[in-house]
Amino acid sequence: MAARLKLTVAYDGAFFAGWQSQTHGNTIQDHLEKTFRRIAGKKIRVHAAGRTDAGVHALAQCVHADVSDRRRSIARWRNALNALLPATIRVLRCRYVSAAFHARFSAKGKIYRYRLWTGPVLPPFEVARVWHVNAPLDVEKIRRAAQQFVGTHDFAGFAANRGKPEMNTVRTIHSARVSKAGQLITLEFSGDGFLYKMVRLMVGSIVRCGLGKIAPQHIADLLHSRRPVQCERVVAPPEGLILVRVRY
Amino acid sequence: MAARLKLTVAYDGAFFAGWQSQTHGNTIQDHLEKTFRRIAGKKIRVHAAGRTDAGVHALAQCVHADVSDRRRSIARWRNALNALLPATIRVLRCRYVSAAFHARFSAKGKIYRYRLWTGPVLPPFEVARVWHVNAPLDVEKIRRAAQQFVGTHDFAGFAANRGKPEMNTVRTIHSARVSKAGQLITLEFSGDGFLYKMVRLMVGSIVRCGLGKIAPQHIADLLHSRRPVQCERVVAPPEGLILVRVRY
Repeated sequence: MAARLKLTVAYDGAFFAGWQSQTHGNTIQDHLEKTFRRIAGKKIRVHAAGRTDAGVHALAQCVHADVSDRRRSIARWRNALNALLPATIRVLRCRYVSAAFHARFSAKGKIYRYRLWTGPVLPPFEVARVWHVNAPLDVEKIRRAAQQFVGTHDFAGFAANRGKPEMNTVRTIHSARVSKAGQLITLEFSGDGFLYKMVRLMVGSIVRCGLGKIAPQHIADLLHSRRPVQCERVVAPPEGLILVRVRY
Repeated sequence: MAARLKLTVAYDGAFFAGWQSQTHGNTIQDHLEKTFRRIAGKKIRVHAAGRTDAGVHALAQCVHADVSDRRRSIARWRNALNALLPATIRVLRCRYVSAAFHARFSAKGKIYRYRLWTGPVLPPFEVARVWHVNAPLDVEKIRRAAQQFVGTHDFAGFAANRGKPEMNTVRTIHSARVSKAGQLITLEFSGDGFLYKMVRLMVGSIVRCGLGKIAPQHIADLLHSRRPVQCERVVAPPEGLILVRVRY
């Protein structure tokens, strides 16, 4: 009898071309499917809660995959996968779930974190793990800008167009937390869902507020305008972004 | 008039073949000297407080170098060096010092940190930054083992032989702190000086205590024995070691 596995997967995005399978093969999906094939001896498709872009990290991406049966224990699955995967992709947890569970469609929400380095010198250990803004940022302005996103809004102005104008672009952000530790500013967003490049477009606007280039009100205007807004959009670079958790 | 520069340098040791210059050139010393040559147009020798091995990291290695004159401001030196160095080597601070200062011979002490990961799965962000012991370690035993090293001892039994039997191997360890956060155990040693591979040999013994393979008393015996001790020595791998600070 077929069985469905749910995997909690962490990865350092710096080493991979994102989640989604590509011809050259160096994506998280490719590595997982190649590893499943080596263990199971056949093609097993893996499905993620969300497709992270090249450079984006995950502390706990959720993935499901259908395997032939439940004979292999979950500890054996985890160990077998980790033994063959690159060290920068790890299966943290593994369990059998019902066939009704779907990593993407069952997700009730996600938490994303974004990290900014504001000092002049980026420490070696933070290379490819933060956005090095290298400018004084006003944390109070950043906090106020981030708060503008909380609530239910049409985020069409904060999505990369993927040619689907009919798509529902209304999302709810439950919280937007900002913290500062030395030269590091961390933003954390919890929401019911995120459009393509939404967090990076949100952070791009928030940083422009922190630099004093736009007012927080400008973000509110963008969120409440129904027409496409003519303005410069800044996409924060992928390396600062981390998928922290998927809620089911 | 010649001037002496003191640099505080951080690096991610995973990318380099250690501090000391080598033929193939991918060492911290090689990168710094190559960069000085590009800026100053001539060979400038750099001297470090200590020669870290391949894979060992530094949060604040101290380095000195003699330049032609003081016309260039310290901010310009720092920015010029960082503009040309790999991103995984950073000059954090830079200042002019007297010609009496020597990065190695003026050092009054050093602080080293060693990080152990005890859980079954090593998180991707910790790859090449911890020793993945992957076994339950008794933290109380580790604490007691680490305490054995505090004080002034002959550390001949905790040094890699570099063919200098006449060398003074007496060193003083001021403190040995052990902390645990989840599956990460961190050891921090402050001392007046450290012999070659001394911290890694100390940690090797401490981990054997934590695994219950030897008793903390065994370490005391090794420290107080004047004869070469016939016993298995474990050198902890370089990736867990970080040079935290040099005291002057």
